[in-house]
Amino acid sequence: MSVPTTVSTAHIRVRYPETDRMGVAHHTHFFVWFEVGRTEYMRDRGCPYSELEKQGLFFPVVEAGARYHRPVRYDEELRVETSLEEVTAARVHFAYRLVRPPAGELLASGFTVHAAVDASGSPRRIPPEVRHRLLACEASE
Amino acid sequence: MSVPTTVSTAHIRVRYPETDRMGVAHHTHFFVWFEVGRTEYMRDRGCPYSELEKQGLFFPVVEAGARYHRPVRYDEELRVETSLEEVTAARVHFAYRLVRPPAGELLASGFTVHAAVDASGSPRRIPPEVRHRLLACEASE
Amino acid sequence: MSVPTTVSTAHIRVRYPETDRMGVAHHTHFFVWFEVGRTEYMRDRGCPYSELEKQGLFFPVVEAGARYHRPVRYDEELRVETSLEEVTAARVHFAYRLVRPPAGELLASGFTVHAAVDASGSPRRIPPEVRHRLLACEASE
Amino acid sequence: MSVPTTVSTAHIRVRYPETDRMGVAHHTHFFVWFEVGRTEYMRDRGCPYSELEKQGLFFPVVEAGARYHRPVRYDEELRVETSLEEVTAARVHFAYRLVRPPAGELLASGFTVHAAVDASGSPRRIPPEVRHRLLACEASE
Repeated sequence: MSVPTTVSTAHIRVRYPETDRMGVAHHTHFFVWFEVGRTEYMRDRGCPYSELEKQGLFFPVVEAGARYHRPVRYDEELRVETSLEEVTAARVHFAYRLVRPPAGELLASGFTVHAAVDASGSPRRIPPEVRHRLLACEASE
Repeated sequence: MSVPTTVSTAHIRVRYPETDRMGVAHHTHFFVWFEVGRTEYMRDRGCPYSELEKQGLFFPVVEAGARYHRPVRYDEELRVETSLEEVTAARVHFAYRLVRPPAGELLASGFTVHAAVDASGSPRRIPPEVRHRLLACEASE
Repeated sequence: MSVPTTVSTAHIRVRYPETDRMGVAHHTHFFVWFEVGRTEYMRDRGCPYSELEKQGLFFPVVEAGARYHRPVRYDEELRVETSLEEVTAARVHFAYRLVRPPAGELLASGFTVHAAVDASGSPRRIPPEVRHRLLACEASE
Repeated sequence: MSVPTTVSTAHIRVRYPETDRMGVAHHTHFFVWFEVGRTEYMRDRGCPYSELEKQGLFFPVVEAGARYHRPVRYDEELRVETSLEEVTAARVHFAYRLVRPPAGELLASGFTVHAAVDASGSPRRIPPEVRHRLLACEASE
């Protein structure tokens, strides 16, 4: 089921150990920031991921990708914009944009695809109420 | 210029802090292991990346992606197989396979694309002798 | 020169990859959070560390330690309290407390000692105005 | 019970993302390398930590510290020497030296203290056979 894209926003500040000897943030940490964005997206829709795990629903990453447009430096405050691209019976697909406020210059973009599994790692269908919450166009208060 | 794929092999052992509370290695660390593989690939061809940087040639990642096929656990010894997919005047494209010895079960696969830049981050052509070494079908002794 | 302890406060939220397969945050990440606290301490006193580095003053860690009192879990919002314990001609000593709001339960405590060096790693005296700012009892506005 | 110090050796190579913009390995990663050394120490004595965890015995870190003597750079091959300082009914104390082969120049030294707990985090006595194995002066084959 394809969905109208609604965006959640998270803020990160680049930490010193996230930089490498090239003087800029290392590419692996962008995926950590995407996860910060995803955590906020789910919390915004009233289904925090920590709660899903308590209910035995896990979303391991089965595919991930990123494009890096501009370098990012120590102590910069950046914005992660997360949207839900698609949710099927057993998969969730998120997209991310890392931008520099206030102008919103695009620094990197990326995506992750997640399988729904139980605590033992076996495939599990995403419960309808979780799907509905994830799909909500408006973040819950 | 497209090249016959020649593979370099690196070995990693999954470290405790590379696991997450799902009990398996977190997806971001696979990109760190790919980098370990890439470092070995370049060393094998007689152009260690640390030497390239001393000569003012840097290869920041401009695109990266991975598919995760099977979970990976603490203390497992795994093999990273790295190949050079393509090298152009200003870009290098590597591919990676993470496999479990001895059978060689495929755990994850991925790629990175790198731009050639100088110390200031400006685009730079890849010097011919670096290209030739990277393209060498046989690893140098 | 010993100083009256004045505290700066930073907030962190535990990220998923900061947890390990024991289900709690791995002990190494506490040092990353201490660094987040230290960055805020220095910004609060009007001498952001990124500015010091631009002036050729670096503070590599020469000693670090931590005591871990209680486990910390994914998605918890925690507070890092940073204080300056001592500043000499060539060293700075910070102390940290990681606490859980709102009660302020102590989760971990630690310290770092830093040498002042220049870009080449040679010892350097801490300039008087940097020392005065670091020692300021009140955070600057 | 105090023990004659017997050393296990592990080898690490500094990874690119372990460096920071100061051009050297960030201090937090030394604790990761210490853990690599500890894992080898336990494996050498016939009680791999992954096996202990399967038996419901966990060793979370309750205290850790390090002194940094010399900077460490990308792609260096280093040696971690791990020794058991003390083991009591409920605690294990390890010490570490990070050295640069072949001369064995000391780069950093450190320690960790671990509490023995069960899967729920409750204190647990260290079983006698685990203590005896950890104390073994000779690494098992």
